[in-house]
Amino acid sequence: MPGADGSGFTAANLPYGMFSLDGETPRAGVRIGHHVLDLAPALHDEVFASGSLNAFLARGRTAWHDIRRRIQCLLDADAPEAAANRAALEPHLVPLERVRMHLPVEIGDYVDFYCSLEHATNLGRMFRPDENPLKPNWRHLPVGYHGRSGTVVVSGTPIVRPRGQRPPAPDSKPPRPVFGPSAKLDIEAELGFVVGTPTRLGETAGDLADHVFGVALVNDWSARDIQAWEYVPLGPFLGKSFATSMSAWITPLEALAHARVPGRAQDPEPLDYLRRREPWGLDITMEVLLDGERVSRPPYREMYWTPDQMLAHMTVNGARLRTGDLFASGTVSGPDAGQRGSLIELTWNGSEPVKLSDGRTRAFLEDGDTVTVTATAPGPDGTPIVLGEVTGTISPARTAP
Amino acid sequence: MPGADGSGFTAANLPYGMFSLDGETPRAGVRIGHHVLDLAPALHDEVFASGSLNAFLARGRTAWHDIRRRIQCLLDADAPEAAANRAALEPHLVPLERVRMHLPVEIGDYVDFYCSLEHATNLGRMFRPDENPLKPNWRHLPVGYHGRSGTVVVSGTPIVRPRGQRPPAPDSKPPRPVFGPSAKLDIEAELGFVVGTPTRLGETAGDLADHVFGVALVNDWSARDIQAWEYVPLGPFLGKSFATSMSAWITPLEALAHARVPGRAQDPEPLDYLRRREPWGLDITMEVLLDGERVSRPPYREMYWTPDQMLAHMTVNGARLRTGDLFASGTVSGPDAGQRGSLIELTWNGSEPVKLSDGRTRAFLEDGDTVTVTATAPGPDGTPIVLGEVTGTISPARTAP
Repeated sequence: MPGADGSGFTAANLPYGMFSLDGETPRAGVRIGHHVLDLAPALHDEVFASGSLNAFLARGRTAWHDIRRRIQCLLDADAPEAAANRAALEPHLVPLERVRMHLPVEIGDYVDFYCSLEHATNLGRMFRPDENPLKPNWRHLPVGYHGRSGTVVVSGTPIVRPRGQRPPAPDSKPPRPVFGPSAKLDIEAELGFVVGTPTRLGETAGDLADHVFGVALVNDWSARDIQAWEYVPLGPFLGKSFATSMSAWITPLEALAHARVPGRAQDPEPLDYLRRREPWGLDITMEVLLDGERVSRPPYREMYWTPDQMLAHMTVNGARLRTGDLFASGTVSGPDAGQRGSLIELTWNGSEPVKLSDGRTRAFLEDGDTVTVTATAPGPDGTPIVLGEVTGTISPARTAP
Repeated sequence: MPGADGSGFTAANLPYGMFSLDGETPRAGVRIGHHVLDLAPALHDEVFASGSLNAFLARGRTAWHDIRRRIQCLLDADAPEAAANRAALEPHLVPLERVRMHLPVEIGDYVDFYCSLEHATNLGRMFRPDENPLKPNWRHLPVGYHGRSGTVVVSGTPIVRPRGQRPPAPDSKPPRPVFGPSAKLDIEAELGFVVGTPTRLGETAGDLADHVFGVALVNDWSARDIQAWEYVPLGPFLGKSFATSMSAWITPLEALAHARVPGRAQDPEPLDYLRRREPWGLDITMEVLLDGERVSRPPYREMYWTPDQMLAHMTVNGARLRTGDLFASGTVSGPDAGQRGSLIELTWNGSEPVKLSDGRTRAFLEDGDTVTVTATAPGPDGTPIVLGEVTGTISPARTAP
């Protein structure tokens, strides 16, 4: 497959997405190098022409594995029938630059966790300087909350700066909130997990690989000033709900077999339902780029809570999973200053702006800024698995009502 | 229409729901007295046979009004063609006892607000006894958060007692949470608003009646012990996500024209985007029944924040609405002790149990308890508009993993 070697999108990767050509209805494809394989005609399976990946995801783990093996066999250059396979695929390979990418799944519920010890500690120190930065529950459960699934958008969608209530000025009497565009627009670089196999109401989920189809990069845009004013006592709402971007490509969990690591040590030992049965830490290195320039390298392997623990917690009360549910890790921040996955941490709430090579500085995002999150993971034979990027550019706030 | 007069389900009401007969696919119907009118054949419109109300709701306000007028004309006993209309409808009227009701809409996002001044004050006093019970933001914006849309269930669905982490015992050293079935299972009697007309990402919503199709009764079941331990700093999660019940019937906003009132006075005056343009307070009186016995009469007209304000707030940051979105008021509690919409308030966190007439007492819900919420509103000519009830019975917690 020309272009596949060295691209990070070899037969060991094979992420799924929804693409369209010339305004036609979106169809499912797999990325191979700089091409998209149009799956419905290539595999003679209409599930890939059903408008989203949900119907395929609902088929379950065995079907995901079988389809992946079929594609890998068709791409195998050493197979006796390689030339015939190649000829059969050729008409269904579309160059990436010709396609438009769409949201890969119809999202059911979107849950965002808070799994980085360093992120939770940093935010606690900034939002609640007079308290212990970690709340008493933090080391006992993966703290999470529901976000707005209707505003999860595909990578590349412009992000309109939100308006809302900001905290009253310290000296205002009586204290009145201020209305206007957010002045503290931020990012959160996260890893998202896409559910394929549902559960019934009252059940708890089993193994991660039985339910989760794959991972996506997520940028949970955050208006820190709106969030700081609204979030007590029921949690973040409008400071997050204006937009959450996800990558167009979903990397199958199976492609991450070589990235699996035990996960960070936990103290105290979690309750039995949260005990790790298998190594579901993931050695994924992320990069955060601001206008193309790297400002951080968040290490997913340093996360305190692993995705199997998030899944067990989310369903221990009997809450059901649906195909298309998305749950994300929360901001990925590591122990080093250069590993923080949000600007509020990188700039310590704006007090230490990030310096770009052209002399510009950024405390928070300005209109026109483009943020891109990329990631790689170890693959077989030393070749990396590249995750599809998530990117977005800030548009000015609306002025009219 | 025999049975319609005096039932609260006259031609002035006409709530919509999804029903099935003998295991067939659910179809849309309108309740008239003790019958369901099967809309697809009665009106020759296949939108009512599409599996949920969403397609009809997506048609928008004018279509909602036109269909309502058509049904009212067909039911008009004084019309010259009344006998012929009656004969035409007759084959499509199904007795209520023959139907099974289903979730009326495919829920998009579910948002729960916190709009009762008394409820927020009562909970603040119990959860944070050392602080001002209202957080500084409460009188400036309708506090809200996203709930789990995948576990919104139709009235009558059994509610399995959730398991989860409860707070450490006060004397435990080191403090460790306890795992097990919730010992403080509670209700929240609420009014829910069902969105018909969507907005685009970046837009804000206009008038309530342009977007909201109708109202439903909601019981947001709450495990107070799980909630108390988990909710800082990101808000309620598993203490709520195991189940939220909604009535099978959605009452059109148009049927509540005689229930509209100005809404409670607000101090301070809210910011301009939250200013009330029209009277959207609603004079709806709810009743909470425990095993059939009334324990509370929450008055919706006493709510501090009105639904037009919830809608304006929820979309001011550009978050889009989808057809099927549900937003609810939060617990409806009035100023009097007999008007509280949750057991935690009625029993003051269990310290003053509710006494039932047969001598039983309840601090929180026990297995086998049935909770039903009903409501009425003023209609034309002094006849009440009855809202469809929401009911549920508690099943024991699961014992196996």
